[in-house]
Amino acid sequence: MSETDMKLVVVGAAGRMGQTLIRIAHAMEGVRLHAAVARPGSPFVGRDAGELSGLGPIGVPVTDKPLEAFVDAEGVLDFTSPASTVEFAGLAAQARIVHVIGTTGCSADDEARIRAAARHARVIKSGNMSLGVNLLGVLTEKAARALGAAAWDIEILEMHHKHKVDAPSGTALLLGEAAAKGRGIALAEHSVRVRDGHTGARPQGAIGFATLRGGSVIGEHSVIIAGEGEQVTLSHSATDRTIFARGAVTAALWGRNQKPGFYSMLDVLGLD
Amino acid sequence: MSETDMKLVVVGAAGRMGQTLIRIAHAMEGVRLHAAVARPGSPFVGRDAGELSGLGPIGVPVTDKPLEAFVDAEGVLDFTSPASTVEFAGLAAQARIVHVIGTTGCSADDEARIRAAARHARVIKSGNMSLGVNLLGVLTEKAARALGAAAWDIEILEMHHKHKVDAPSGTALLLGEAAAKGRGIALAEHSVRVRDGHTGARPQGAIGFATLRGGSVIGEHSVIIAGEGEQVTLSHSATDRTIFARGAVTAALWGRNQKPGFYSMLDVLGLD
Amino acid sequence: MSETDMKLVVVGAAGRMGQTLIRIAHAMEGVRLHAAVARPGSPFVGRDAGELSGLGPIGVPVTDKPLEAFVDAEGVLDFTSPASTVEFAGLAAQARIVHVIGTTGCSADDEARIRAAARHARVIKSGNMSLGVNLLGVLTEKAARALGAAAWDIEILEMHHKHKVDAPSGTALLLGEAAAKGRGIALAEHSVRVRDGHTGARPQGAIGFATLRGGSVIGEHSVIIAGEGEQVTLSHSATDRTIFARGAVTAALWGRNQKPGFYSMLDVLGLD
Amino acid sequence: MSETDMKLVVVGAAGRMGQTLIRIAHAMEGVRLHAAVARPGSPFVGRDAGELSGLGPIGVPVTDKPLEAFVDAEGVLDFTSPASTVEFAGLAAQARIVHVIGTTGCSADDEARIRAAARHARVIKSGNMSLGVNLLGVLTEKAARALGAAAWDIEILEMHHKHKVDAPSGTALLLGEAAAKGRGIALAEHSVRVRDGHTGARPQGAIGFATLRGGSVIGEHSVIIAGEGEQVTLSHSATDRTIFARGAVTAALWGRNQKPGFYSMLDVLGLD
Repeated sequence: MSETDMKLVVVGAAGRMGQTLIRIAHAMEGVRLHAAVARPGSPFVGRDAGELSGLGPIGVPVTDKPLEAFVDAEGVLDFTSPASTVEFAGLAAQARIVHVIGTTGCSADDEARIRAAARHARVIKSGNMSLGVNLLGVLTEKAARALGAAAWDIEILEMHHKHKVDAPSGTALLLGEAAAKGRGIALAEHSVRVRDGHTGARPQGAIGFATLRGGSVIGEHSVIIAGEGEQVTLSHSATDRTIFARGAVTAALWGRNQKPGFYSMLDVLGLD
Repeated sequence: MSETDMKLVVVGAAGRMGQTLIRIAHAMEGVRLHAAVARPGSPFVGRDAGELSGLGPIGVPVTDKPLEAFVDAEGVLDFTSPASTVEFAGLAAQARIVHVIGTTGCSADDEARIRAAARHARVIKSGNMSLGVNLLGVLTEKAARALGAAAWDIEILEMHHKHKVDAPSGTALLLGEAAAKGRGIALAEHSVRVRDGHTGARPQGAIGFATLRGGSVIGEHSVIIAGEGEQVTLSHSATDRTIFARGAVTAALWGRNQKPGFYSMLDVLGLD
Repeated sequence: MSETDMKLVVVGAAGRMGQTLIRIAHAMEGVRLHAAVARPGSPFVGRDAGELSGLGPIGVPVTDKPLEAFVDAEGVLDFTSPASTVEFAGLAAQARIVHVIGTTGCSADDEARIRAAARHARVIKSGNMSLGVNLLGVLTEKAARALGAAAWDIEILEMHHKHKVDAPSGTALLLGEAAAKGRGIALAEHSVRVRDGHTGARPQGAIGFATLRGGSVIGEHSVIIAGEGEQVTLSHSATDRTIFARGAVTAALWGRNQKPGFYSMLDVLGLD
Repeated sequence: MSETDMKLVVVGAAGRMGQTLIRIAHAMEGVRLHAAVARPGSPFVGRDAGELSGLGPIGVPVTDKPLEAFVDAEGVLDFTSPASTVEFAGLAAQARIVHVIGTTGCSADDEARIRAAARHARVIKSGNMSLGVNLLGVLTEKAARALGAAAWDIEILEMHHKHKVDAPSGTALLLGEAAAKGRGIALAEHSVRVRDGHTGARPQGAIGFATLRGGSVIGEHSVIIAGEGEQVTLSHSATDRTIFARGAVTAALWGRNQKPGFYSMLDVLGLD
């Protein structure tokens, strides 16, 4: 821990993701856990954030006063709920700190209020904080644009653990959207999600999906672009659920040197 | 070409597979093309087998007299029709040579007549002459038996070119059958061939199939056995349509030193 | 937890592997943690085994009296040191329970004493308790035997995290030995471990190794058997360090119904 | 064949690559073989270009007069020698047609003369005409820039057939250069090309290479970017040696609608 470490607040400290954020903010270089915030009334308030999250005591008690926590901090990591995030965005703007938002399900109105806060705060918001998945989306769009539909077929393959109840995964669909955008087509009109029995030949321009389920796989995605005699494959494999927390910390460190504004992980990757 | 090269006859010389067999029998070490047989009346009779198959002249004219061709030969490569194969089996038994049969679609009656011929000939018959695919089937059965359904999930993934009109591939189903045999279950009752939308969690003991289509892929198959924290994957990739002809020649060479009998590619692989 | 759960003792409870074994024995179905043993004098003696290993209290205090722990148990999981393992083997034989041994570095004398104990205990001992790796070794030997060196080239590829300081990995070498055994050759005389610059063509019969290092990869191994126009690949991927503990519990459950004797993971897999 | 097909000339018609170009120009949609040029004195002059290349007669005799061949053509496909290419560049400029150059080994002087010709011709020149490999290079540079060396490790893996005599492949080194460019480092100072025995931990910022050899693999390349808990992999697989000829035809079709100038495959891919 050094003097120049970025001081981070974790909100939603009582939740599973909050506890992961506490562990990762504690472990990664260049940052330190400055405060941990839970809701007023949470049984965790007053207890040591490290003990809650399995680290052992670290001398940071959980508080229910976010503004106090933000005032001397440099950034806040927020994977909570839309209502809480809108509130935290206002406080982060007051404190003029970095606000990293992994919260999903925000309404258009929530989004507008967060963007308003971004006039004073540096907000980085993304539905998927994995650096690798965000990069894969950008590369997929680029590849799909470069390799035309007349000669190249796009397939998206994903594998997840046996407990997952839907298919294809959200990330697979996100990659399909990126491919469709690169091709200038609507995904819904070109996706092929089932192949069984007599399928006929592959329609030109189709974007195919295939799904594997088994074991404890956290998430594997491949975008296959197959032409005559050659194939390009772009893949991402996640082996640890902490990658979203790591991406959030990386985003906070990136945001430290930015002007106020509303950013995405593509900005963090330098890709936008 | 040496004195000890095995002398092979290709039947069905006018067909596409026959021509591939001629090229491979000409190219592989340890064998030589002794004769090439087409049906009486074929316009190819009398022409040079090498020229027909794109090799340039090799001094072996196509004949329509199989018995003459077989008499001084040591083996025959046969990917023709059930009726022709039954006839060739009788002649091969007379000539007491090796009869490698890749013909598909034989009835139970055809099969019985071929087995009768195998009392004098060495018959090697398989629906898929690729050494790799046959090996993969055996390894799949073994792995499925060793890794029980309570903790290990089996998935079968295949990819073929964009022109293929059915799914899953015959080889994928064959691998599924091998896995089901290893598990002691009926494939039909445990296979999952479609996943789209809300699927629910993976049923224990299921054998899942997923299909990719694109480009000019000749055939890729993977058997994935996924457990908690680890995964075993057994794969085969074909990049050349000549592998079936190569497997047939390998079978002929193996058969040279066997006693008369009815064999499969598993015997050739030393796996049965 | 049911009446029929197998009662397991974890020895070496103070160590990192001991704590993993406690968590896994607590979590897996069909077994329960009966006792946890540390050395006399360990500061852990008397404390709750669950708390030590991050589970929270489970009502099993750590003891320094192994025989008492073994008497009412059905199995012991042992990843300790050769000296301790020899002692535990004697006690397990007295108690007539299953002794699963993942300890490495045993001398010939240690081995003899363990085998003597196996006249009364059911001992299952392996240098690598992963079911998948053990299976891969068996399949590799089988595949290397079936696909001859004249036409098929064997390559072994491994990837591990950036902190690993040696290459190739022990498991890669174990797979190389399995391939060499299948081929009936000595690995040392046929392995190719470096390729850089002008290498010349690949020597026939060589077993090549290639090493990747990066990120946090726990262990990936592939055996590639490449022929003309086709390729067979047998792979194992570990994504969780608990697989060795899981394998040990699986071995214990298997051993419950065996006669006294000395077994390996191949017996557990039904492959020997 | 339609009225609007682009009329292409193949130079170097007597060579192996020339014959592949003839077959592909004959087979691909949107183009047709207008002429085939061999050196004066070649025994092929006057013979049918289709017969030479295994297509059977196509009514295009080989000529030794390139300017006559170019005058009514729209493009020329040129994988010859530097001296010939410089000469053809002058003629293509006179004829104001597209000149696709896959010739390698051009000196700085040759290059200057080709660029001079590009004031009037549309020249597309690349050392590797595969669309997929060129795309992979661009994506690799982008990914290496986005994923910093502090947290992400780059490895380059390639596999080729057993006859290849050097390692790593030229394409692997090209991908390494792309990665180094993205990172802003010199490849020579950061590449790790051998790992055997005690290697020590992976140096931060290293670009590792690993080489596989076996069977008949035409060319497989993967760029692996491994971080903590996640991995991005970008791969290319070639299964057919015609991909370079296909890329050349694709480049010619793209060039048809461009202004005179000097272009690369990145322009054809729309990536520059």
